[in-house]
Amino acid sequence: MKLFSYFRSSASYRVRIALNLKKIPHETDFVHLLKNGGQQRGEAYAALNPQKLVPALATEEGVFTQSLAIIEYLEETRPEPPLLPAAAAERARVRAIAQLMACDIHPLNNLRVLQYLQNHLQADEAVKNAWYAHWINEGFGALEQLLQSPQTGRFCHGNTPTLADCFLVPQVYNAQRFKVDLGAYPEISRINAECMRLPEFAAAAPENQPDAE
Amino acid sequence: MKLFSYFRSSASYRVRIALNLKKIPHETDFVHLLKNGGQQRGEAYAALNPQKLVPALATEEGVFTQSLAIIEYLEETRPEPPLLPAAAAERARVRAIAQLMACDIHPLNNLRVLQYLQNHLQADEAVKNAWYAHWINEGFGALEQLLQSPQTGRFCHGNTPTLADCFLVPQVYNAQRFKVDLGAYPEISRINAECMRLPEFAAAAPENQPDAE
Repeated sequence: MKLFSYFRSSASYRVRIALNLKKIPHETDFVHLLKNGGQQRGEAYAALNPQKLVPALATEEGVFTQSLAIIEYLEETRPEPPLLPAAAAERARVRAIAQLMACDIHPLNNLRVLQYLQNHLQADEAVKNAWYAHWINEGFGALEQLLQSPQTGRFCHGNTPTLADCFLVPQVYNAQRFKVDLGAYPEISRINAECMRLPEFAAAAPENQPDAE
Repeated sequence: MKLFSYFRSSASYRVRIALNLKKIPHETDFVHLLKNGGQQRGEAYAALNPQKLVPALATEEGVFTQSLAIIEYLEETRPEPPLLPAAAAERARVRAIAQLMACDIHPLNNLRVLQYLQNHLQADEAVKNAWYAHWINEGFGALEQLLQSPQTGRFCHGNTPTLADCFLVPQVYNAQRFKVDLGAYPEISRINAECMRLPEFAAAAPENQPDAE
């Protein structure tokens, strides 16, 4: 397998964690999202992923896109260790936590959106930072409540890492990079710290990638 | 089961289609997203879904949120007719198509974001419409290319409706409501028309809901 990744991309970071947890041997191809107007917009990469976003995962069965779909594919083809619980209702909870970030926080705060705000809406740094923090606080406020549940354990769901944790850690990293105060989210912060004690999470962190700057 | 829905909510529309395709008997509770500052922000609904977003699905196993997680739960507990293919690689394609809309188009264009643009960035109608159309065109441009595939059939994937179609139809409805020109997306338009010939899709349409205005 070959992962197309950028060190700071949250969506790439999620897949890196899943690949590490499942100990799947793979190569990595580095796609620089800023250099030369963004290598993801070049012909070679756009042929792999018409969305011109990272990550993409090239496998013997084809090239897959969308971090959530990629991790579900890994779960179905390399089931150990499982990143989803066995019971449907528990799977629904884990997926909903992941999607709270995948659908309702991250898409609003990623690079292309911040660039649009700057280029088309003349947003300065203060306006962009307020926008960024607003969607983090909307999402993390709800997530903190969802985590007040007997189903939460050492990790977002139970005592082993799941899909939900693969999404939580990159989102926390991203929020910290934009200097959002996470003081109101003790449970999110606790779980993030638990995850970062595991080598599979630490090795996936942006600063530990070969393309880190 | 009880679905918490708003007639114009794209995410509710997706779940309505899935419930209809699987012929799952259910009640509906109507949550008006605009009346009294939004009924989804009221105490009763926020206790069900801390995200204060529709839809939510109350079942005998608990309350589930996030349209994609809800439909995956329905797929796992009521497998007929299947909304995902059997092979992992095909499931990854169907999920990626759904997530292109769930993660990269809809979150940027929903009510709370347009309200933020207006209230905090002083965006007028023209600026909001340009924003809206930009993310539709970014996403639909890529989707139109992804659909140029031998795996596309009468529907997004093969000749029976899948999860991908549950997401495509509400996104097209939404784009049309905002008067985005879909002339550049013949395959998306063709599949949308195919779906709308099926009574399960037509019955889920916003204008056919009891709370339609």
